[in-house]
Amino acid sequence: MRNHGVGSWTARRARRTPHRLAVIHDGVRITYAELHDRTARLAHHLRHLGVRPGDRVAFLGPNHPSFLETFFAAGQLGAVFVPLNTRLAEPELRFCLADSGASVLVHTPDFEHFARSCTVPRPVAVGSGLDKDLAACTPVSPDVPVTHADTAIIMYTSGTTGRPKGAVLSHGNLIWNSLNTLVDGEFADGDVTLLSAPLFHTAALNMTCLPTLLKGGTLVLEETFSPARTLDLVERLLVTVMFGVPTMFQQISAQPRFADADLSSLRILLCGGAPVPQALIRTYQQRGLGFIQGYGMTETSPGVCLLDAEHALDKPGSAGLPHFFSDIRIVGHDGDASRGELLVEGPNVMSGYWNLPEETAAAFDDGWFRSGDVAHVDEDGYVTIVDRTKDMIISGGENIYPAEIENVLYEHPAVGDCAVIGVRDEKWGEVPRAVVVLAPGAVASAEDILASLDGRLARYKIPKSLVFTDALPRSGAGKLLKPHIRDNFGTPS
Amino acid sequence: MRNHGVGSWTARRARRTPHRLAVIHDGVRITYAELHDRTARLAHHLRHLGVRPGDRVAFLGPNHPSFLETFFAAGQLGAVFVPLNTRLAEPELRFCLADSGASVLVHTPDFEHFARSCTVPRPVAVGSGLDKDLAACTPVSPDVPVTHADTAIIMYTSGTTGRPKGAVLSHGNLIWNSLNTLVDGEFADGDVTLLSAPLFHTAALNMTCLPTLLKGGTLVLEETFSPARTLDLVERLLVTVMFGVPTMFQQISAQPRFADADLSSLRILLCGGAPVPQALIRTYQQRGLGFIQGYGMTETSPGVCLLDAEHALDKPGSAGLPHFFSDIRIVGHDGDASRGELLVEGPNVMSGYWNLPEETAAAFDDGWFRSGDVAHVDEDGYVTIVDRTKDMIISGGENIYPAEIENVLYEHPAVGDCAVIGVRDEKWGEVPRAVVVLAPGAVASAEDILASLDGRLARYKIPKSLVFTDALPRSGAGKLLKPHIRDNFGTPS
Repeated sequence: MRNHGVGSWTARRARRTPHRLAVIHDGVRITYAELHDRTARLAHHLRHLGVRPGDRVAFLGPNHPSFLETFFAAGQLGAVFVPLNTRLAEPELRFCLADSGASVLVHTPDFEHFARSCTVPRPVAVGSGLDKDLAACTPVSPDVPVTHADTAIIMYTSGTTGRPKGAVLSHGNLIWNSLNTLVDGEFADGDVTLLSAPLFHTAALNMTCLPTLLKGGTLVLEETFSPARTLDLVERLLVTVMFGVPTMFQQISAQPRFADADLSSLRILLCGGAPVPQALIRTYQQRGLGFIQGYGMTETSPGVCLLDAEHALDKPGSAGLPHFFSDIRIVGHDGDASRGELLVEGPNVMSGYWNLPEETAAAFDDGWFRSGDVAHVDEDGYVTIVDRTKDMIISGGENIYPAEIENVLYEHPAVGDCAVIGVRDEKWGEVPRAVVVLAPGAVASAEDILASLDGRLARYKIPKSLVFTDALPRSGAGKLLKPHIRDNFGTPS
Repeated sequence: MRNHGVGSWTARRARRTPHRLAVIHDGVRITYAELHDRTARLAHHLRHLGVRPGDRVAFLGPNHPSFLETFFAAGQLGAVFVPLNTRLAEPELRFCLADSGASVLVHTPDFEHFARSCTVPRPVAVGSGLDKDLAACTPVSPDVPVTHADTAIIMYTSGTTGRPKGAVLSHGNLIWNSLNTLVDGEFADGDVTLLSAPLFHTAALNMTCLPTLLKGGTLVLEETFSPARTLDLVERLLVTVMFGVPTMFQQISAQPRFADADLSSLRILLCGGAPVPQALIRTYQQRGLGFIQGYGMTETSPGVCLLDAEHALDKPGSAGLPHFFSDIRIVGHDGDASRGELLVEGPNVMSGYWNLPEETAAAFDDGWFRSGDVAHVDEDGYVTIVDRTKDMIISGGENIYPAEIENVLYEHPAVGDCAVIGVRDEKWGEVPRAVVVLAPGAVASAEDILASLDGRLARYKIPKSLVFTDALPRSGAGKLLKPHIRDNFGTPS
């Protein structure tokens, strides 16, 4: 094969394991041979539509086999896949399409209305019409030469501030991230991986879907997350690996039948987005299950660190150790070499942002990607993300990392969810404020909760005020949307 | 790290799993932290001795931790490791040292006499003197920049004919071979891998040792093979993976206590060198164990095909399917596209032979490495090595592949080992002759054995003569040394 990129994976897997199930979705079971057949046909169809190497092919829709087929078909043509976040507003979607310069937009029927309103990218609706077109195509991949250096995907960062930026990820970036995951994780032959987080997020696609397919496992693809159905699927399909963000695992364990469900097939719980709370780790431990926690970002394809299940409790809140083939470096604040901005280098690190040379230059420091996260590295090399550099609060000249305060707040039994932000203060410049969602049925005053922090945090870190709210905005990846929270709750009192 | 080659692996593993056992050898247990410490010190020591990037560092000795330490230390310096086959005669060893231009020869005490007789490479004896020197060195790797394209190792091919040729293998070649093995094989966290085949052979080093260390497993290193001790070690150290050539597994199963030994820890039997006889597969199957069979050669680092345990019996004699990241192609004989010389392409294929531009050019066909093996590919893509191109017999214009006849001969209960060679014949040009070693205690005449082939092979393939011998010469990798057999038994009768 002249194609050495991810687009060749369907052919490579169909060569080794044609009859194994690649994808189970909504009752439909697709073998590797079938996945390759459909993908190769789609590649030819896209080529008929004019897609050439380097052209961008966008996809808009929930989790569906056509997401993967479009991803692999684009890769077979040496074209660039652009997955769109279905949660974006229409102007944001239009921005991503225009910015990427996509010539084709493959979409599920849910987005028919939006796709028709687009003028530039040619819409291709998933469904019976497309199936007829594919039936007329040849099921043999067009063997376009593709190297690891070629661009595989432009992935728009969730963009909690400003406009989305397209991270340009090469085939090598995606492949090495999967290889890091195979070396450091525990994917095995015959895995059945349940994925109900959206594929357009980097962790779902790159930490879960691609390593599973690389090893020849079966991907169970769910369009939406339902904790009750998750338990059913685990039992019925003998799921071995499950990916989610902490809140998903929280909801699953809150199911009445969690204690009795047959989870004996499960081997790995993969979790990303935020550290898994210790209480949740213990809840699953009682069912014999451990978490493998990943830390990373779209720009690093995404794996930077992995915390294995064995160390989840003795390194609480840690992001773990850097991946085997990647490296990290701390650029210290305050002359402290063990705490500062986390920089990443490795074969999984993007080449830059699409059409943004200045942002790209600013994102790198001598070839190392600047994560924008403040991290602490302990004596064993374990990395703990202290906070986002831009979320850091500076109060009276002291750096305050909101996450540190949030971690202590979480331990109060009445605190269900929380965020700490900085609010302007005449005397100190900024002071921390806690925004708290009470746990279901819990009753507590702001004074009670703040008093519980006494002696557990330096005085200057204890929030000067605490406000209650019903829910905190989080991204699809489970991250607190701090800019939104600052907008809503950041007015000085 | 600026080192992206295999030399960085000790640091990368020490970062992730410092306290896990890397090597057990002769009662000594070495953790990854210790392996890295010793390796980094040795790198500094070699640098003090003048070793610079690109310089060759040879190693001569049986399986010993110092083999691995020298391999990784050379890699840390960007130097090239040259493992020498301890079974070579002194003139052959001198040839390899002179040809590679090694500046340092690290050796175990067994080779003190030979090393002292060398003038050019500086001898470094493993032992207490070296240990004292290492104690004075810093245990931090010299961070020399090394890329995947840099040469990691020159591995001399076993050279059954002519002078040994040095296959130049890059860091990328070795790394991708290990990655192919992780994707297609079943190495897992916590593996305990028993290796008593010599590390200077590519399969032992690259298919067994490096994938084990990449995953952070424990390597049990034996200097010599003893079937009885193998069973003891499996029980005592809870070995999970074992590598060998078929005759080793045959000897193990011939042990009286094979039937009762506790083999419950074993998960994978890795076998290379030749297809595992069906009877042997069944013997191990009765103990609940399957074989993963690898096919490859020094020039391809070495993995080309892998036959998983599941298909060992329904694809008898097959080499399996090509590795995930590599490709094969058949250049047909007789207009048959499914049978012909096997060509290999992939990130594990060497750049060429050391200082042999003509042999290098002849070894490649448009970028594809010519294996010199004749292969057949079935409808499922399974490759069967029919024979070496140069071992093929041409009788009356018909191609006869000796291995095909050998496979049928093996099924005769009296045949313990066998080889088929061509002998000159006035009428047919060449005719096949069988050279047979009787199984222990078996009695059979040449006529009995040849008669058993009637109806099972085309008449022209049935050997015209059969001679008995006590033992057949095989290489360390278990391959029949056909040129020797032709020399001894090839005289026309």
